[in-house]
Amino acid sequence: MTLKGKLIKDAVIFEKNAIEELHNRSFYGRPKGDTLEVSLVENAYLIYMGKIRVEFEGEGLDFKNFFLKASSIFKNFELYYIVYKDLRERGYYVQPAVTGFRVYPRGGHPGKTPAEFFIYVTSERIPLLLSSIITHLGTVENLKKRLVLAIVDEDSDLTYYEVKKTIPNGTFKLCTEDKPSTASLLEDRVMIWDPKVSLSLQKQGFFGKPMDEGHLQLSLVESCYLLKNGILEIEDREKRKLDFSGFSTLASKIESNFSIKYAIYEHLRNTGLVPKTGFKFGTHFRVYKKIEDMAKLPHSDYLIHAIEHEHTFSLQQLSRAVRLANSVRKDMIYGAVDSKVQFFTVGRMRL
Amino acid sequence: MTLKGKLIKDAVIFEKNAIEELHNRSFYGRPKGDTLEVSLVENAYLIYMGKIRVEFEGEGLDFKNFFLKASSIFKNFELYYIVYKDLRERGYYVQPAVTGFRVYPRGGHPGKTPAEFFIYVTSERIPLLLSSIITHLGTVENLKKRLVLAIVDEDSDLTYYEVKKTIPNGTFKLCTEDKPSTASLLEDRVMIWDPKVSLSLQKQGFFGKPMDEGHLQLSLVESCYLLKNGILEIEDREKRKLDFSGFSTLASKIESNFSIKYAIYEHLRNTGLVPKTGFKFGTHFRVYKKIEDMAKLPHSDYLIHAIEHEHTFSLQQLSRAVRLANSVRKDMIYGAVDSKVQFFTVGRMRL
Repeated sequence: MTLKGKLIKDAVIFEKNAIEELHNRSFYGRPKGDTLEVSLVENAYLIYMGKIRVEFEGEGLDFKNFFLKASSIFKNFELYYIVYKDLRERGYYVQPAVTGFRVYPRGGHPGKTPAEFFIYVTSERIPLLLSSIITHLGTVENLKKRLVLAIVDEDSDLTYYEVKKTIPNGTFKLCTEDKPSTASLLEDRVMIWDPKVSLSLQKQGFFGKPMDEGHLQLSLVESCYLLKNGILEIEDREKRKLDFSGFSTLASKIESNFSIKYAIYEHLRNTGLVPKTGFKFGTHFRVYKKIEDMAKLPHSDYLIHAIEHEHTFSLQQLSRAVRLANSVRKDMIYGAVDSKVQFFTVGRMRL
Repeated sequence: MTLKGKLIKDAVIFEKNAIEELHNRSFYGRPKGDTLEVSLVENAYLIYMGKIRVEFEGEGLDFKNFFLKASSIFKNFELYYIVYKDLRERGYYVQPAVTGFRVYPRGGHPGKTPAEFFIYVTSERIPLLLSSIITHLGTVENLKKRLVLAIVDEDSDLTYYEVKKTIPNGTFKLCTEDKPSTASLLEDRVMIWDPKVSLSLQKQGFFGKPMDEGHLQLSLVESCYLLKNGILEIEDREKRKLDFSGFSTLASKIESNFSIKYAIYEHLRNTGLVPKTGFKFGTHFRVYKKIEDMAKLPHSDYLIHAIEHEHTFSLQQLSRAVRLANSVRKDMIYGAVDSKVQFFTVGRMRL
């Protein structure tokens, strides 16, 4: 027997007999007194499965007309439908939630087990605010659940990404020299001219890259870190000394996001990690937990990209970054800079 | 015997005896009458090698002071020096050229063989205009040479990329139906409701993705192509018919770069290729030369990204795109849209 429901506003209302059949048996909808209220997405799926029929203002709606109606009521309805159907067909019980859906672990269901994931549904085309990820992550982690982004691409293919907070750390300790050495700021990098200092910073500190025997080139963040820690003095080409704030100002002119990159660099160095440029991977840093010898550089452990707290992700770029990091077996981590620094790892997930 | 030169403006001038020793033997500098004029980069290298000494206004310049001087005369001098030194040390003969350097093939040298590459020197931080690549490519290809980008990253590591024009093409032929079918534009994709049409467009045309049995979802570019070719009629949710220009306008509101994406999509389809979204690779399209069966989709052949003729590359993004494409053994191709469409492939190069 097909159950009949009525579309009222943004849900379909069924009579009492549906509570047993749809809700108690298969966990669709939410009982409200003597009726069952079923969300639009659940309904579209139930119509597709041939389990229910829906009326609107006295007229029956077939799948097409229900879908068109729902998609005019509920923004991005089709995205939610694609994700809901996918999860259901993978054998998960799914319920509507503030982020999109609440998903029960395989084998579990409402009333038996707590939910495991919160699914945030979005499309490839919708820019994603870091601040909204942080908000959702806060909510979800408070409930001891996991946050999963479900991204529907242009061809309606689905990719799931899990977002987690993380705290990268390593074992490196910086030994400082007695007396600072002097280096020159050229166009967009710094050169150390003293062969002994060049060698020691490179071999013991894992800073810079030798331009040739005796001359070490440092990146802006490296130089700034050494300057701040009293290990280096930096002059411009006219041999005028630069202090930390003067150098930072110049560096920010060369590289507009210098200040957030530096905040992440400093944080990583201070937690025992060695960051080097991640240019070949398209990120700000590749990061080593442990280096024993610069000549035998191991594979790096993380790819870390510095972003502002106000950052908006393009999902295409996020997808590319995660894919690339995974292809070289590294974690893709975003370092968000605000009054404090927070790290998030984003990884492809196979549900 | 160390040769002595004088720094005058932006070059170092040597007396006649240097012509034999520096130029005829090792191809440094350009003879001018009875003197040899050597560029700043060549000079820094010659000082480093201990082959010459340089004076400026009566005073000797050591490596450090020559380098500081040169870097204040010649913008991004250090980048050119890093690239020059790298090429020389790999055994290439190198001469200054309009793009940066002209490089002779291994084993060849000026006067014996023609140059093989033109090297365009730049830094990770400098945005790269597509229009300037096109200009250089024109010059270089007219001379039957190859264009190589030498990109110096933050850590002074060097990556070489070769840029080439390319013409992707495939073997797919589109068979059209007698009568157009009707589809609905939802939020940002189009749905075909007719099960027969869904099946035929998917199986024979390789369009769309089945949402379930009987319903096919099309992307905006696919829908627009089918609309333009009279294979599909498209209605909005209120069942108002949309024509090509109306649909394009709506699609451009949904996706700001719709028009260039569509231009590339149409061009690829018209040359026998099957483009699908490249979202998982962070590009607009992954492209198939040949598909026999949608159920047994082969690996795609190209990753293609649509850009405007006025596009500016961020080298970090370029690096990421090329690295990702190579990691899945595909060519990374940019499709530039102007009054006509041009394709460029960018690939990592090991000199």
